[in-house]
Amino acid sequence: MEVEIISVGNELVLGQIVNTNVAYLADQLRQLNLVAHYQTTVDDEPARIEAALKTARTRAQLVFVCGGLGPTADDQTMPSVARGLGRKLVLDEDHWQAIQRLLKQRAAGMPAENIRQAYYIEGGQPLANPAGLALGALVTVGETTVGVLPGPPREFKAMVDQSLVPELKRRFPAAKQVTSRLLHFAGRPESLLMDEITAVLGDLPVVATSYVQPDEIQVRLRVDDRPDAAAAPLLDQATRRIVAKEGAYYFGSGEGVTLAGQVVKLLAAAKLTITAAESLTGGLFQSTLCGVSGASKVFAGGFVTYAARAKTKLVGVPAELIAEHGVVSAETAAAMATGARETIGADLGVAFTGVAGPDPLEGQPAGTVYVAIAQAGQPAAAWRLDLAGYRGRQVIRQQSVTRVLLALYRRLREKTGNADS
Amino acid sequence: MEVEIISVGNELVLGQIVNTNVAYLADQLRQLNLVAHYQTTVDDEPARIEAALKTARTRAQLVFVCGGLGPTADDQTMPSVARGLGRKLVLDEDHWQAIQRLLKQRAAGMPAENIRQAYYIEGGQPLANPAGLALGALVTVGETTVGVLPGPPREFKAMVDQSLVPELKRRFPAAKQVTSRLLHFAGRPESLLMDEITAVLGDLPVVATSYVQPDEIQVRLRVDDRPDAAAAPLLDQATRRIVAKEGAYYFGSGEGVTLAGQVVKLLAAAKLTITAAESLTGGLFQSTLCGVSGASKVFAGGFVTYAARAKTKLVGVPAELIAEHGVVSAETAAAMATGARETIGADLGVAFTGVAGPDPLEGQPAGTVYVAIAQAGQPAAAWRLDLAGYRGRQVIRQQSVTRVLLALYRRLREKTGNADS
Repeated sequence: MEVEIISVGNELVLGQIVNTNVAYLADQLRQLNLVAHYQTTVDDEPARIEAALKTARTRAQLVFVCGGLGPTADDQTMPSVARGLGRKLVLDEDHWQAIQRLLKQRAAGMPAENIRQAYYIEGGQPLANPAGLALGALVTVGETTVGVLPGPPREFKAMVDQSLVPELKRRFPAAKQVTSRLLHFAGRPESLLMDEITAVLGDLPVVATSYVQPDEIQVRLRVDDRPDAAAAPLLDQATRRIVAKEGAYYFGSGEGVTLAGQVVKLLAAAKLTITAAESLTGGLFQSTLCGVSGASKVFAGGFVTYAARAKTKLVGVPAELIAEHGVVSAETAAAMATGARETIGADLGVAFTGVAGPDPLEGQPAGTVYVAIAQAGQPAAAWRLDLAGYRGRQVIRQQSVTRVLLALYRRLREKTGNADS
Repeated sequence: MEVEIISVGNELVLGQIVNTNVAYLADQLRQLNLVAHYQTTVDDEPARIEAALKTARTRAQLVFVCGGLGPTADDQTMPSVARGLGRKLVLDEDHWQAIQRLLKQRAAGMPAENIRQAYYIEGGQPLANPAGLALGALVTVGETTVGVLPGPPREFKAMVDQSLVPELKRRFPAAKQVTSRLLHFAGRPESLLMDEITAVLGDLPVVATSYVQPDEIQVRLRVDDRPDAAAAPLLDQATRRIVAKEGAYYFGSGEGVTLAGQVVKLLAAAKLTITAAESLTGGLFQSTLCGVSGASKVFAGGFVTYAARAKTKLVGVPAELIAEHGVVSAETAAAMATGARETIGADLGVAFTGVAGPDPLEGQPAGTVYVAIAQAGQPAAAWRLDLAGYRGRQVIRQQSVTRVLLALYRRLREKTGNADS
């Protein structure tokens, strides 16, 4: 079954607001195995709403029209959909009574206009609005079922969750079966990663698609048209093949998994604490760790050592070492990591020093970054990241943090076993 | 002229991400008097991209196809658009050389697949990508002009701003003249701000629209259909009225202005240095400062004092003070700010301590945050931010940083005069 979502609103067409409703509804539909392959946005003009509905009916059997159910004259969705379907509007008397009661409580006065919000489409079913005044509707005409939903995100979400989804589950038990799994990678160019994944999947009936975010590459594996019991082993087999090849860049599977979250989880499991001395990243590593709920178990505090003198003063990097090797050096990175670790009394210390740009530093171009990991009882490991191919301060800083998180993940993973959720 | 925007991406269709690009482009187009009355979203399926383009050409003369320009096999936008227009793909040799150079610098190896990103549509014009590898295209076939743009928001925005908009201005010299100015605000709910702005504008022929970002609210003032010489005084008058009312939340006007950038500029002008001790924000304030090119003039380094013992050890907050008042208190915030300032030897010290959530701390709910600013020769100022109405760790952390940057901006502005660019 093809599904289309039509979003209605002048403010969407003018780019004044971002359409979060459509993503929310599409995600909810996907969980019912309904994929909204077509999504359209139009303004509040009745002719354009009708035209969009007409086009949708040529290609979809389930159509949602979202927004434009307010009480004012520019809210034209319900009458436009009714006209488009050749149906009348019907007043829900009970709902109109309820609206009048609510408006009286709010002392809002003049409720006459709000009667529009008590109408739904003849022959259809009203959808209750647990968070607002406007009634929704679900109506089947010929081969098409059309749902009408309100625009304000709080009302939209409440009606989708509490009125629409339960009704859809009744009406459309299992369309096409889709089983999917989300894998997470970092530190690898997307094109290379996907080439290699496609190659290792070979003729397994598993489709891989990728999505790049600033701090990771998400790869979704999908098996179509098989029951869960048959799909799960295929996804397992695909995951095993991929991890065998791309293990160095892989950090887990599942929705909601983040690299920082995985590192915090592994540190907590190993009962290890961590700290940092950050130069070019300016606190981004520590801030990323603290973004994980429960980070306080593994992180007490750390340092931003932006200037050379802060490296000496806060984490005891000898001024002579900096004079000899420069601030942009493996030696300085190692001394920062060790100094931070010893000053805080943490098990692990990490350090970042380098050139975020745009200007060079010590004759080194933007993207030259040295990082280090120090651990009690071991010599500090320091290495150079060459990020000259990345553009922009923020990207170089973000990449530096991601690479060190990945190195920590791999180091901890070797010691403490699997952190997959 | 009718305009349509087609967004391409499996992750959009599946509701995995929110489409911020389409709002950004629609807003930019509106400033050129081009209203995107039709907006469509499809997945990466070539047949559906072609079908969407075909439908668009029946109703629009300017069509944008956004997303799906990555290097992998599921990125099908450029060939699909070429097929839909009956045109061939053409290799931009110079751009292919540039991609190879960049990939070599990234030590990514095997760049063969990336050659896809150097193709554009025959007879069209390549659009440079200032922030990534994929080339865009702008091509006119018959009565339709089609623009092809990349999906990642950073690349999308850079190509729209730097390549597309200048070219559209050349090709479609506005039917009517539009003059606009961008004002920046923080720390005020959007609906309240816009209600008040609409009220103070009264019957001035100036239209205000808002765009919410995580760290600010941008308000664009627009004057239609008047030559610059007539429009500028109207924009000046509108700005004066708005700043008189909303001065406490206003931090400057102009494209590319950021709150952190304004604070760094004012600090540098006053020859003042700054440091911080951050608890719940975990380094986000310092990292935001370091995101400004030239931050090293005003910031040498600072502290992340997440645990109570780090507050004592790193910036000398007396353990007894914490025991008496709690870590979530004005007293602790003030002592952190003063301690950080004195330890580093900076002119100003700021501090953040509070509850990011989800769990309460010391019986205080998520969103209870104390911040402080200490300056040499003055008692530290500490105050409570009530962010209980905001949901989520990241939002509470971001709001805390923004509120302190705004307080710094106002304090420095009073002393050093206008920082407007």
